[in-house]
Amino acid sequence: MAEINHATLEVAHKAFGYFTHGIATGDWNLFIEMLTDDFTLWFPIGPYQGLNVGKERASAFFNYVSETCNTRLEATLDRVTSNETTVVFEFRDEGSLFNQPYKNRVAVSFDVRGDKICGYREYFGSDGKSN
Amino acid sequence: MAEINHATLEVAHKAFGYFTHGIATGDWNLFIEMLTDDFTLWFPIGPYQGLNVGKERASAFFNYVSETCNTRLEATLDRVTSNETTVVFEFRDEGSLFNQPYKNRVAVSFDVRGDKICGYREYFGSDGKSN
Repeated sequence: MAEINHATLEVAHKAFGYFTHGIATGDWNLFIEMLTDDFTLWFPIGPYQGLNVGKERASAFFNYVSETCNTRLEATLDRVTSNETTVVFEFRDEGSLFNQPYKNRVAVSFDVRGDKICGYREYFGSDGKSN
Repeated sequence: MAEINHATLEVAHKAFGYFTHGIATGDWNLFIEMLTDDFTLWFPIGPYQGLNVGKERASAFFNYVSETCNTRLEATLDRVTSNETTVVFEFRDEGSLFNQPYKNRVAVSFDVRGDKICGYREYFGSDGKSN
């Protein structure tokens, strides 16, 4: 029987911790340090909707999340699933976005390569008004 | 080291096969047969937005998907992750919804109990226009 890849899980959990720090505080430095140069990011809506390629583009996106959206969200982790190279976090968030009350259910899927994150896909499970 | 739960994966893959049959054909019978009586369903948008409880409510939802939305979508599975009791499928779909062209990126998370599905959460990764 195949075993769970604990190295993949450990790297992804570390990145998820930095990610939740980013959405809570607007400080994305630790998260961005963990991204590969060829990092790809898929986002569901807005000016970064679809595929975004490269660490520089990722920095611009997370700067948009912090500065333009003024994102301040607390995350509550519900569930983690994984395979050899990918880890999915299902969580709920609540706080403010664009200075308005905001809550959602979210799944983020991280692809892990070595001790870095090389891929990120975000999925929305609710409408921004309930979680 | 913990091992992957192959029984959970097998039940979830069977259900996902019936699920993709449902979105492709409008026939949800095989999928609904796999649901527990206390099945819970979370959906992101529309009249069934949020939490829906019970197999009867699920039947109503999937009937809405088939009849009201006239859903006819082909799914392409990209990635599967799991833990002891939950399996997440990341896929892309393309076809028609409300008789209009439709495509999306989707994550569905199935909770498995025995040989049944007891929980289902759907998350949208795109805007219904691209995948």
